Amino acid sequence: MPSFTVFKGTKNGIEQTKTEKPELKGDQVLLKVTASGLCGTDLHYKNADMVLGHEGVGIVMELGPETTYLKKGDRVGWGYEHTSCGHCQQCLKGNETFCPERAMYGFADLDQGSFAHGAVWREAFLFPIPEGMSDEVAAPLQCGGATVFNALHQFNTQPTEVVGIMGVGGLGHLAIQFAAKMGCRVVVLSGSDRKKDEAMKLGAHEFVATKGLKELKVERPLDRLLVCTSAQPDWELITPILAPGATVYPLSVDEGDFKFPYMSLLLSGITIQGSLVASRYIQNRMLAFAAQHKIEPILEKFPMTKAGIEEAMAKLEKGDMRYRAVLIPQSE
Amino acid sequence: MPSFTVFKGTKNGIEQTKTEKPELKGDQVLLKVTASGLCGTDLHYKNADMVLGHEGVGIVMELGPETTYLKKGDRVGWGYEHTSCGHCQQCLKGNETFCPERAMYGFADLDQGSFAHGAVWREAFLFPIPEGMSDEVAAPLQCGGATVFNALHQFNTQPTEVVGIMGVGGLGHLAIQFAAKMGCRVVVLSGSDRKKDEAMKLGAHEFVATKGLKELKVERPLDRLLVCTSAQPDWELITPILAPGATVYPLSVDEGDFKFPYMSLLLSGITIQGSLVASRYIQNRMLAFAAQHKIEPILEKFPMTKAGIEEAMAKLEKGDMRYRAVLIPQSE
Repeated sequence: MPSFTVFKGTKNGIEQTKTEKPELKGDQVLLKVTASGLCGTDLHYKNADMVLGHEGVGIVMELGPETTYLKKGDRVGWGYEHTSCGHCQQCLKGNETFCPERAMYGFADLDQGSFAHGAVWREAFLFPIPEGMSDEVAAPLQCGGATVFNALHQFNTQPTEVVGIMGVGGLGHLAIQFAAKMGCRVVVLSGSDRKKDEAMKLGAHEFVATKGLKELKVERPLDRLLVCTSAQPDWELITPILAPGATVYPLSVDEGDFKFPYMSLLLSGITIQGSLVASRYIQNRMLAFAAQHKIEPILEKFPMTKAGIEEAMAKLEKGDMRYRAVLIPQSE
Repeated sequence: MPSFTVFKGTKNGIEQTKTEKPELKGDQVLLKVTASGLCGTDLHYKNADMVLGHEGVGIVMELGPETTYLKKGDRVGWGYEHTSCGHCQQCLKGNETFCPERAMYGFADLDQGSFAHGAVWREAFLFPIPEGMSDEVAAPLQCGGATVFNALHQFNTQPTEVVGIMGVGGLGHLAIQFAAKMGCRVVVLSGSDRKKDEAMKLGAHEFVATKGLKELKVERPLDRLLVCTSAQPDWELITPILAPGATVYPLSVDEGDFKFPYMSLLLSGITIQGSLVASRYIQNRMLAFAAQHKIEPILEKFPMTKAGIEEAMAKLEKGDMRYRAVLIPQSE
């Protein structure tokens, strides 16, 4: 593999091209990509001059001189972060996603991504896929799964709590499963009743269709709320069903200001928690937890071709994906 | 004391009147007020039809039939909260400030307050004043001190952290002292240099005068920021000096929405923490900590008369108070 096919975003849309395989240095690993998830963030970068994709799964093909634990043939995944400095306060306490020198999707390594047939990444930022978990299932967990699991796990969600999930989509349908398997009571807030049956099957205990309602009612108030919708909620509608001391996680990417009713914040002691993918130790725990509890994304498969990527992106953009796209590289 | 003098807010300003002493029931206690702090919140209610004041200190004069631990002559303080249900989840876990049936200043017991010569409150919501702490010093700690101490203590501030205090006023000048005595590095952000010397004397390690600056510089980024100003900060200026994972506490009362740059919230994993006065166990710890470390408000004393209250309120409203007013009841 002296070079490998990659799919870039460009001003004119998706373009298929090649990236040269660099000589492997340090703990770099050459991977053959077997599956890649498609995430909302990829849509944000579809006209940037960069290779897309950050929910990769692949097979180890070749090992750099300083690799220590992977071997050829291992199956691994990777996500948003590719490297960090290793010596700052954030790295040392296992928060390397907040390292000031982090290399993140969209900000670094723009000639690489998981919309590709090959990839070169640091062993230190690869995650072995548990036995019995398929490549297609593992791919969307690398960012989508990590994002919702991190919000729940890093901030110590208790099994006795009530977890609200707003939006049943790529993130939400995974969040429902993780929270339910953690033992929590799961309350889903969605615009309409359309996804009610599916949400209940995924583990939800209560489903509230919010559209047109002036007042929401839930059996028990929410201790946590994961906002998995791309649009921001109507907080005046939501705050009355938050428990005192509830934590709110805005999880999707947005611009401008986050806004929340000031006096509700104080009088109910609300926490607004910024949360971003997962640090490595949490990513590994997430994969082990998903394998143990058979937590799986509901998938739509597309061929990893210009046409396949465009079709998947169009469907995601329209809000019609049920619930996460996985792109499968085609033999060349 | 069949009735006692109280000072009300009314449409036409401060009015002196009388409240009947009710027959003491349950664990109610009759107090002779010896000092009351004046807080920004009192200004908010100065035209409401209610007795003002919620930073009270007084002497136990008479005990209800179910009191258990206080005795006549004891010195006690009280603050924002007068009662709670005692059986909800919040009460049971020591978060009674978020009890749905809480009775709070401004929302209940409107015929009572600490701008008064007497008061009747539940023993369960009174706080013994440590020996050696004067009544005047103890009064502003009941709300102002409790508010800043709670923000630091309830959310586990570590002595190794850098704590930013924005605004050197009634809250800020106490926050500087508490954070410094907790062992933290304290960085004060203030409009001008005017209060620099005083802030450094109170325990600050670094002082940044922000007015006119396009970019702020601090020796180490802030792990916590207590916003003690009544106006909301320019977050675009502040976010670059927040450490990843920093916690921001908006502490003063405001209307409308709390706004914070959305992508900074996510990319730096910021926590926005709503925090409100202190639960009782934290109030007691605050008083013990203040007594141990000689943390004292800087005071301006006013007579507790219509004229004295008006003068103090005018000074506070103009931003000229250095730093907390205490009203002293005059013999009748």
